[in-house]
Amino acid sequence: MITRDYLEKVDINKAYRLLNLGATCMVTAEYNGDTGAMPATWVGALDYNPTKCTAVIAKEHYTRPLIEKSGYFAIGVPSVAIAKELFYLGSVSKNDEKDKLEKSGAEFFTLDNSKIPLIDGCIGYLIFKVIPEPHNEQVYDLFIGECVAAYADKRVYKNNHVCFDGVDPKLHTLHYVAGSHFFALGDELKGDGFGLDE
Amino acid sequence: MITRDYLEKVDINKAYRLLNLGATCMVTAEYNGDTGAMPATWVGALDYNPTKCTAVIAKEHYTRPLIEKSGYFAIGVPSVAIAKELFYLGSVSKNDEKDKLEKSGAEFFTLDNSKIPLIDGCIGYLIFKVIPEPHNEQVYDLFIGECVAAYADKRVYKNNHVCFDGVDPKLHTLHYVAGSHFFALGDELKGDGFGLDE
Repeated sequence: MITRDYLEKVDINKAYRLLNLGATCMVTAEYNGDTGAMPATWVGALDYNPTKCTAVIAKEHYTRPLIEKSGYFAIGVPSVAIAKELFYLGSVSKNDEKDKLEKSGAEFFTLDNSKIPLIDGCIGYLIFKVIPEPHNEQVYDLFIGECVAAYADKRVYKNNHVCFDGVDPKLHTLHYVAGSHFFALGDELKGDGFGLDE
Repeated sequence: MITRDYLEKVDINKAYRLLNLGATCMVTAEYNGDTGAMPATWVGALDYNPTKCTAVIAKEHYTRPLIEKSGYFAIGVPSVAIAKELFYLGSVSKNDEKDKLEKSGAEFFTLDNSKIPLIDGCIGYLIFKVIPEPHNEQVYDLFIGECVAAYADKRVYKNNHVCFDGVDPKLHTLHYVAGSHFFALGDELKGDGFGLDE
């Protein structure tokens, strides 16, 4: 109940802005009732009108064949509030621990007619249809997706912009470095510090 | 003189960690004495051993043909200290303003045997050789590079990790949303706030 009660559908042409921040993402996918969930740092925007993304999903991940078979994946942009759950989901594979998702403490839900479970506590969610690019997928583990639906927490995404003014810092995004090291996104640059006239 | 006196060469196998933060990047390229410089948000890590990256460089950018002709580009990871210069470099094209680089106020320098000018004030620099992928470049404006050299500011990159503890906040990274809106990266998550035992 961290963010899912605050979601609203947003413009898929502008939803790439949720990815612009460069936050570590949560990738989820579903096939035939089976769900995979993994954090991924190597996710980014590729285009707008509509939003496209790139996502690096290595072959050993449980989530990858679910994406390949279903042709869809979801990207969540996690907040600090679910750092613990995100870290757990990234520290074990469902290949090794079948009840990883339950053990993570993450709460899953779906939206509209998508079957892909999403993880509560993200400030935005984008549902992508895979644009098949077999060469990229095989050689680089690189998937390209075209956004078919997007949702964002209306407390932090207003008029198609992320805005953290007056927002609980627990809703800021997470940025991964290596090991167990994450940073939280800080304040917006304003005034003299930015060197711009307001 | 913001960061260039503090640079040291770093392991190209681990330099992807400079990109993990998801910061807005500075792309520079050089061909036959001509230099292009542009901020780019859609840049990310693709692989390690050695570091590879993806970078979306649209066809209208002055910098793109310099990359195509030389086969190389550099990625800088700008700090808050050069937000003003970065914003200027992103607000005009050298196609329209021939002295854009001089007007920006950015200070350029080169390292070792690379001819590519780098912009002072970045916490890290990665030099990439283009891996030609004509389909990606034409259809998606997506370039793939393999890192041939990397440098980082030793005040914030230690033992192949970004660490902002006790560091001037002006050396934190910049994260773009849209319009003229940027955020600075904040603090590392530690202790109870992260939900992990230290």
